[in-house]
Amino acid sequence: MAESWSFLDTSEPKFRPLVVIELAKGTKKETVEWFTERIVDKKSNGGAQLLVKPLVTENGDETIYLVGASPFRLLLGAETVGLVKECNDNSMRTFTYSSRKTFKDFADDNHNFLTMAECQYIIKHELENLRAKDEKMIPGYPQAKLYPGKSIVRRLLTSGILVQIFPLHDREELKKLRYTWYGRVKVGYQPLDEIRCYFGETIALYFGFLEYFTFALMPMAVIGIPYYVFAWEDYDKYVMFATFNLLWSTAILEVWKRICAIMTYHWGTLLMKRQFEEPRPGFHGVLGVNPVTGREEPVYSSVKRQLRIYLVSLPFVCLCLYFSLYVMMIYFDLEQWALDYHEENGSNFSSVMLFVPSIIYAVVIEIMNRIYRYAAEFLTAWENHRLESSYQNHLILKVLVFNFLNCFASLFYIAFVLFDMKLLRQSLATLLITSQILNQFAESLLPYWLQKRHNKKMKKRMGSLKTDTELSLVEQVNLEKEMGTYLGTFDDYLELFLQFGYVSLFSCVYPLAAVFAVLNNITEIYSDALKMCRVYKRPFAEPTANIGVWQLAFETMSVISVVTNCVLIGMSPQVNALFPDSKMDLVLTVALVEHLLLAVKFMMAFVIADKPRDIQIKLAKLEFESLEALKQQ
Amino acid sequence: MAESWSFLDTSEPKFRPLVVIELAKGTKKETVEWFTERIVDKKSNGGAQLLVKPLVTENGDETIYLVGASPFRLLLGAETVGLVKECNDNSMRTFTYSSRKTFKDFADDNHNFLTMAECQYIIKHELENLRAKDEKMIPGYPQAKLYPGKSIVRRLLTSGILVQIFPLHDREELKKLRYTWYGRVKVGYQPLDEIRCYFGETIALYFGFLEYFTFALMPMAVIGIPYYVFAWEDYDKYVMFATFNLLWSTAILEVWKRICAIMTYHWGTLLMKRQFEEPRPGFHGVLGVNPVTGREEPVYSSVKRQLRIYLVSLPFVCLCLYFSLYVMMIYFDLEQWALDYHEENGSNFSSVMLFVPSIIYAVVIEIMNRIYRYAAEFLTAWENHRLESSYQNHLILKVLVFNFLNCFASLFYIAFVLFDMKLLRQSLATLLITSQILNQFAESLLPYWLQKRHNKKMKKRMGSLKTDTELSLVEQVNLEKEMGTYLGTFDDYLELFLQFGYVSLFSCVYPLAAVFAVLNNITEIYSDALKMCRVYKRPFAEPTANIGVWQLAFETMSVISVVTNCVLIGMSPQVNALFPDSKMDLVLTVALVEHLLLAVKFMMAFVIADKPRDIQIKLAKLEFESLEALKQQ
Repeated sequence: MAESWSFLDTSEPKFRPLVVIELAKGTKKETVEWFTERIVDKKSNGGAQLLVKPLVTENGDETIYLVGASPFRLLLGAETVGLVKECNDNSMRTFTYSSRKTFKDFADDNHNFLTMAECQYIIKHELENLRAKDEKMIPGYPQAKLYPGKSIVRRLLTSGILVQIFPLHDREELKKLRYTWYGRVKVGYQPLDEIRCYFGETIALYFGFLEYFTFALMPMAVIGIPYYVFAWEDYDKYVMFATFNLLWSTAILEVWKRICAIMTYHWGTLLMKRQFEEPRPGFHGVLGVNPVTGREEPVYSSVKRQLRIYLVSLPFVCLCLYFSLYVMMIYFDLEQWALDYHEENGSNFSSVMLFVPSIIYAVVIEIMNRIYRYAAEFLTAWENHRLESSYQNHLILKVLVFNFLNCFASLFYIAFVLFDMKLLRQSLATLLITSQILNQFAESLLPYWLQKRHNKKMKKRMGSLKTDTELSLVEQVNLEKEMGTYLGTFDDYLELFLQFGYVSLFSCVYPLAAVFAVLNNITEIYSDALKMCRVYKRPFAEPTANIGVWQLAFETMSVISVVTNCVLIGMSPQVNALFPDSKMDLVLTVALVEHLLLAVKFMMAFVIADKPRDIQIKLAKLEFESLEALKQQ
Repeated sequence: MAESWSFLDTSEPKFRPLVVIELAKGTKKETVEWFTERIVDKKSNGGAQLLVKPLVTENGDETIYLVGASPFRLLLGAETVGLVKECNDNSMRTFTYSSRKTFKDFADDNHNFLTMAECQYIIKHELENLRAKDEKMIPGYPQAKLYPGKSIVRRLLTSGILVQIFPLHDREELKKLRYTWYGRVKVGYQPLDEIRCYFGETIALYFGFLEYFTFALMPMAVIGIPYYVFAWEDYDKYVMFATFNLLWSTAILEVWKRICAIMTYHWGTLLMKRQFEEPRPGFHGVLGVNPVTGREEPVYSSVKRQLRIYLVSLPFVCLCLYFSLYVMMIYFDLEQWALDYHEENGSNFSSVMLFVPSIIYAVVIEIMNRIYRYAAEFLTAWENHRLESSYQNHLILKVLVFNFLNCFASLFYIAFVLFDMKLLRQSLATLLITSQILNQFAESLLPYWLQKRHNKKMKKRMGSLKTDTELSLVEQVNLEKEMGTYLGTFDDYLELFLQFGYVSLFSCVYPLAAVFAVLNNITEIYSDALKMCRVYKRPFAEPTANIGVWQLAFETMSVISVVTNCVLIGMSPQVNALFPDSKMDLVLTVALVEHLLLAVKFMMAFVIADKPRDIQIKLAKLEFESLEALKQQ
């Protein structure tokens, strides 16, 4: 940032609103003045040097502020956050202002060099890094303490003065994106690059994974169909299907890493340096010195945190798991009762009743999953993790373990305790289909319908009947600030993870699961797209290079599925018939095959390189260049 | 390298010989002149700017040259290779000449700031990076082609003009080291820091691992002794021992990573940046452009290499494995024959004969391992890997697979085909003890004796009866250049790896194995120390941060040992007696326990952090500082 930058007036004609700040009603004037002053203040004075403009709504409240920045400021911000862009020689490089001319599509008057999502990410980063200097508190709010280096925005958020910060939609862009994404009936890929430009890498990667996963399931689905159509029951066909499934699921997870590397390389995030992680907003503690940065910040003893994790969270999770098993046993009682009822009566009604316990159980599972989710979030927040990443990992672990047991325990019980393959098939189908329908409904369609009704109401109140693209800025902001907040890709990945479990854990019993999964995922793409574009506020872009802990979760599931499938095949009467004399031989053979499959799996994971060769070479080239540059210094 | 350096005369009084270069007899004068000229030439002219002095031996040949460097040159070299040293504030930082005053123990007149091993490593690095400018060939040798950027030393080595480059011993230092290391009878740790200063990190880490491993085996050995003494045969005790063993072996491998991180952090290698890898000396191909560096260098199609690996090396390895199994079957025939002979005759002689097949087989295994080793080296070199690391990985994989099968196949056969636990115990003991004796003899004692004899001869010829420290430089160089070359830690780790196999694979059958392993390792430390100090030339130091692929190899072995031990326990008559009615239940229980143990193992590996918390914080601090520095720029 060698060049000095002129201070730009907030009222300059080029002001383009990018991010909306909503303050609480009745926020004191001095606070507002101080906060906006800090936002526009020069970088050298510790400000963010952005542009702010109040938005006067119809009620005359001044609680909404629009934030923008000059193109020059954004370019400097892009350097600060370490964006990686494509150069003229087609290589990807970290953007710096001084080398801007070497980048593709860069021109001083080209304001599309940075995508809108990138601009908003930069502004978010700058706002979050706006730090207290010598202020001891937020002016006007003595209880909202500050200390040098504390992020002002985070303190404003935790003390409730700042209601929310969100990026604005670009109605024109969004319309175009909607059209190419789901606006027309077509067979083809999603416009992942456009999604990434509009929503950022994390969301684009989720849709990329969803699409990839759907395509990857298709061979399984195609092979699964004849099993259903011709009602194949030969053991050799099942063994073949299961073996194919196991190797296939390993292969697709390995290949995904490569595809992910290709995508994120071209998006620049594969090369992006990890920034230093600040404490998450909810983190609290007594003021101390961070041993890493040497800065003053709240510190919280890691022993205390460990105690909270092992003495409270762990027992609570175990209790929940026990409760989930208890509910499962009730389900089996119900199931037995329905069966008895059907045997007694034998009517049409009673045969329908046979499905009722499964459906009730599926609904209860979904409800329990959602309640547990809140408890897990509360507990993990209470554990007081310093970093958002560590919070996320603990939350994901808690939720995964519970959801896994909650969803699959009954199936394991049916398969390995009751040995009832027919019931297993039936339960699997009911659980899978019910949970898919519930999910799609609760996740996208219901919010969409609510949102639509709400929008209509809002528009009616504003007396306008314009289409979305004709809305004035005030109307647009007012509409968007009421929309729900998208809470990240967690639930979406979790749904895919459980689906992967339904498909792979018992694949040799119910080959049709893959078909349902494919069908669900195709509609899921559309309903998730709808959700992103119409139901929720636009989320801030989050640069990411991979799907993180989910890769590990999917891989673990595929290891578990090797075990379950081998056992299931070993239990099938056809295989049993092959070993008429000695059950021992059967079990030993199954165990041997299982170990061999696991060995093959690990070898496949070892042999298939995580990144394609050309990406490896490109990365090596960059590393070599930076080493050479260091030597020249 | 901002400061200009004065050109130092080779004959200045302070010249301290560090590295010896031996040229072939009858090397042309113009070649020698050109080579030494390039070595002493200024860096700006593409030279190495080192000091060279010819050493005139008694026969008057000028084939030996001593290389040294000015203290200032060495400091600049330390910056080039990226050495990490301790600062005044006890943090570890990459050394730069400009920040030299901030480092601990740095003074302009303190020539011990860099250890002798580090100086020698720097000189080696500078010599290897001495590159051809516009020379098309080595002067005087038109067949030894050069191209811009080709390492001159590597071409001299491959064309046989350069016989060897090796670092000189420091007789005073070595005497001190020998005394603290193995010169007195003591109970205690090895002087690892001193070993590291003298021999470098790779070798110090090997001895560190050997020591750690020996201590880690002690609890197993201690618990194993009463099994032998009281001839315990209760299944519950065996189960306990095996379970303890399995969890223990996981724990020690995880804890080793932490200890390794602590050691290498304090040695600086944990933080050292990986340098760009140049092609290994033996690599050949047609001249092309490296896609990473853009430099001219030989390139070799990776498809061709893959073909060589899969069409030649893989079948060859399989053939060798088959041959090894064939030899094993011959051994069992012999064993049977010895048994029959003993039954027929029943004499003392025939009962001794019972052990002969095992001993012969152990010797044959050792011989086969060694022959195969040469074949593997030849094949891997023929595969023409570009990088030394990739060559090493392929070599290690080949050797490990063969040695594993060669050493353990007979034990697996006895255990799981013959079900003969008595024979298993006997074979295990014979194999373990024989291989240990053979190894110690072939690896250290024999070379030591040969070396001693040779030294005496040499000294007699030189007519001197001085002790080592009194030798003149000429005598010292003449003695050292005839010593064998230490070929790296490969064989030493391999020996430990196989020993770990003997101890853990069948630990529940022969608890005494750990006792023998501990005893062997204690003598191994001494014989290896002897080997390093007295038998071989001093090796160049190699900075390294961990034991590399061996960690993976040991972990794989410990996974396999879970399986073998569970099966062995399941086969024991005591456990069988627990399930009198159903063998099925037995097998299922064993399989369940095995899977639980494996799950616990993986969870332990996941939960135990690879680096202790304080090292993690120190690393995070450095990373944070470099991020901040980047921002300031």
